[in-house]
Amino acid sequence: MSLRNRTSHGRGAQRAGPYGLGTRHAAMPYRHAATTQAATVAASPSDPTWDVAGGSERGNALHPLANVEENRRLFDYERSVKDKFAAIIPVLKEIAAIQHEPGFVEQAQNVASARLGFALPANILEDAWVEQLDMRTLYAHCVFHAFHWAAERFCDEQARQQVTMEQTLCSLFDCGFHEVDFSPCADGRLMGLVTFVLRLPYGAVRRKSYAGAMFDVEANVRHWMRTEFYRHREGKPSLPDAGTRYLKIAVYHWSSSDPAHEGCAAHGSNERDAAEAALNRLVAFRQAIENSFCCGASVDTLLIGVDTDTDSIKVHVPDADGAMSLFRYVDSAELYRQSAGLDVGNAHLYVHRAIQEAARAEGWAQGNGAPHEGMLRLMASLLINNLSQIEYVRQNHGGRYSDIGHNELFISVGEGFEEVQIRNLTYYAAMYTVEEGAADLDIGIKIFTKLNVTHGLPIPIIVHYRYDSRVPGSKQRIMAQCQRVKVAIEARYSELKQRGLLVCAMAVQDKMPGSRIEMLNDEAVDNGH
Amino acid sequence: MSLRNRTSHGRGAQRAGPYGLGTRHAAMPYRHAATTQAATVAASPSDPTWDVAGGSERGNALHPLANVEENRRLFDYERSVKDKFAAIIPVLKEIAAIQHEPGFVEQAQNVASARLGFALPANILEDAWVEQLDMRTLYAHCVFHAFHWAAERFCDEQARQQVTMEQTLCSLFDCGFHEVDFSPCADGRLMGLVTFVLRLPYGAVRRKSYAGAMFDVEANVRHWMRTEFYRHREGKPSLPDAGTRYLKIAVYHWSSSDPAHEGCAAHGSNERDAAEAALNRLVAFRQAIENSFCCGASVDTLLIGVDTDTDSIKVHVPDADGAMSLFRYVDSAELYRQSAGLDVGNAHLYVHRAIQEAARAEGWAQGNGAPHEGMLRLMASLLINNLSQIEYVRQNHGGRYSDIGHNELFISVGEGFEEVQIRNLTYYAAMYTVEEGAADLDIGIKIFTKLNVTHGLPIPIIVHYRYDSRVPGSKQRIMAQCQRVKVAIEARYSELKQRGLLVCAMAVQDKMPGSRIEMLNDEAVDNGH
Repeated sequence: MSLRNRTSHGRGAQRAGPYGLGTRHAAMPYRHAATTQAATVAASPSDPTWDVAGGSERGNALHPLANVEENRRLFDYERSVKDKFAAIIPVLKEIAAIQHEPGFVEQAQNVASARLGFALPANILEDAWVEQLDMRTLYAHCVFHAFHWAAERFCDEQARQQVTMEQTLCSLFDCGFHEVDFSPCADGRLMGLVTFVLRLPYGAVRRKSYAGAMFDVEANVRHWMRTEFYRHREGKPSLPDAGTRYLKIAVYHWSSSDPAHEGCAAHGSNERDAAEAALNRLVAFRQAIENSFCCGASVDTLLIGVDTDTDSIKVHVPDADGAMSLFRYVDSAELYRQSAGLDVGNAHLYVHRAIQEAARAEGWAQGNGAPHEGMLRLMASLLINNLSQIEYVRQNHGGRYSDIGHNELFISVGEGFEEVQIRNLTYYAAMYTVEEGAADLDIGIKIFTKLNVTHGLPIPIIVHYRYDSRVPGSKQRIMAQCQRVKVAIEARYSELKQRGLLVCAMAVQDKMPGSRIEMLNDEAVDNGH
Repeated sequence: MSLRNRTSHGRGAQRAGPYGLGTRHAAMPYRHAATTQAATVAASPSDPTWDVAGGSERGNALHPLANVEENRRLFDYERSVKDKFAAIIPVLKEIAAIQHEPGFVEQAQNVASARLGFALPANILEDAWVEQLDMRTLYAHCVFHAFHWAAERFCDEQARQQVTMEQTLCSLFDCGFHEVDFSPCADGRLMGLVTFVLRLPYGAVRRKSYAGAMFDVEANVRHWMRTEFYRHREGKPSLPDAGTRYLKIAVYHWSSSDPAHEGCAAHGSNERDAAEAALNRLVAFRQAIENSFCCGASVDTLLIGVDTDTDSIKVHVPDADGAMSLFRYVDSAELYRQSAGLDVGNAHLYVHRAIQEAARAEGWAQGNGAPHEGMLRLMASLLINNLSQIEYVRQNHGGRYSDIGHNELFISVGEGFEEVQIRNLTYYAAMYTVEEGAADLDIGIKIFTKLNVTHGLPIPIIVHYRYDSRVPGSKQRIMAQCQRVKVAIEARYSELKQRGLLVCAMAVQDKMPGSRIEMLNDEAVDNGH
């Protein structure tokens, strides 16, 4: 069910009430949900939903390692954000219906404030009498507002998570890593990777997405250098002789329900190609550092795959040399099934044993021994964390998302919002210029043409870059950059723009941790503040 | 006199022979040159040529601090390169005249090989009979070949200069600087800054040009960080506790002959605006580093101005806090005049005293005391070096260049050639995408429309980026980048391109020191090697 077509309450809302997780009725809605929402894929033993969740044998029991409390908290967050967006179209429909009535402007603002939580642009409402209400601009305005609200909510949430973040940093440090740097695919279905799929707190790891997980080797070498610079010069986050490592993780994805169509577009929906390309990029990154710097400079690398239909993962186990294989991995869906009936202690043990077994695999999967102890522990943590997410999808989405394909609500262009950690909320195109990023943007426009334009809705785009408040003139330059990219986007898709089917907003944000997103308008940019 | 209009021997060639510098006739051509070439600005005591060179009172005596040997070597180099370019049009005219004769292809190749030193593209010559010879493509081909020849010559020369370079690095280190990083304006008339104007060997300092000297603060902070990273991690070029500093120098320019028209285009030919903008950028850079990093991170900065008509300089003297003023500087033209009649020892002393005096200046020029000893010595060295260049211009160009305006031969787009160290050879537009660099490129196209297109000649453009051979895939990515930028340029100026009036070449180069330029063709890029 698309959020765009909703006319009453959202799916999230249907799940609320007495069937919330953690109550004694916690398991109840699952069957119901599975029946109504995953109806097309149910009832067969080879059905993947069935497989991941453990099938009918287990009934509604929770996995012993699932974090019920965290799942409830995350579901509240996901639901509140999605509800915010889902409310837009019903409210606009209601407002559209009364546009020619007396006292329309006031009525419309009342409805918007009550149901959306913000006011609509007065000038658009006031001009409705001339021809009709400019619904496209209003829709985009609402999407931008809902996003800003969600981002603010995320910041508040994260501020409360400060302690968890510090604990996670300590755990990563215990595993021997002073920096964990994710390069997932930029696909909207992976936007929940850190917070949901791997259950890592915001700020504890770095995430920068690239189409097809094809991260920029040169830019990543520069980031490595920056990290090492701080270690050498300021002893942060660890001293150079602490023996810790920089860990680079590439994340590819596939679709278990429709592998030939709903996998990674950048690799023709071929799981193997996607995994191989990401692995090659990791090898190149490591080689670049080993070749370019002396004194034994190196990094650890890790390859992870995500099934975007179920959020289960494959963790490719490095060998003692740090080398990985497409054939040597631990599959969390399999782990879930095998360990679901165990007690907590044995389930833990089972995860660790599965990794050890993978490390000893033979044939095509064979590697040169097991990785170092810290890497083993990290992989176990990620897999255990992911069991909670499998449970989350099982409980809240019938074991398999109903929107297995693209279903994003807006396009994000630029450096990417840390604040977007929810699956299928935004299509992200990483770029500093349209000239370089045109290919990714074209794909986004194609997706949204199908999702929005065919329904008469505009494509909402937010151009977003970060400035450094410590650097004089930085904010002004970044604002000018937003404007430049916006102009280039509007020029590339001028026909959509002219028809009101492409609406571009701009946002800047300080690089300092905890900074809020500042939405811009054209006038602010022209005035330089 | 433009190289484009030459039909016989170049100006350089006229200067060769018995009147070469360092012979007993060394001073002879000066008068002659001044009479014939600077005729419009001669004969008045307030005439700037007169001023800079010391006027008639001194006759033809050389400045005691001028390096005669170096001046001869540089003149040979400048002349050989400019002659190479100057030969193109006469040779092409000759070939054009015989294009319909029997045995044309062979004859043309003989003429080209003998007079230019390289063959012309056979297919163009062979197609001449159909309509007529494609002169535009031939011209561009010759310019690219001449440039490549000049670049190779420069590399050979620099390999021989290894010792001088190391001595200079030691001297800079003695002055307390482990890195000296120039950001001159990208104007073609400043391309001789390092090698000619300041007499520093290639490789001893960094040079990266920006339109209007408006260097990218963020990119420069990254370069600073990179430099400090190597110091901390590898102890190169100095250990972190060596007490040395990073020195950033911005270089603006003006024209003393036609200040309102031939100054810096980026600042409306206003010397004061150009100087002030460069100074502000230096202040911002220093602040950025002081604000962004702890433990007393800072840099030294220096502001230099160049009169592009005479190559004399103004060095703005920092005070004890490192602060500079537009009003506190030492003018090398003035120094030249005042110290020309002294002996070597007193001339040296005079330079040092002039700096001390400037540091003690009052009124608007007043600063907070003198800079540190190393900075004083560096400024003295630069000023003394520049006296040789003033002498060079006096001896070889009549004290003032005849081409005081733009007279470049091709446009260089991308990261800039280190190999171009000759005044007015290339117009440089620094960019990674046309989207960002369009404004600079438009100015270049405007300049070359006047210089070339109005004469029916095409605008030759070389797109050039550097790869890192230590990074897997880097060369391939950089080649793709060349291709992307070439396509974007040809799309932006499609009308010129269609008329054969814009010809774009591509070149890549390894980042490793001493690497040669590799010219590419479209096929090589498509094949990825």
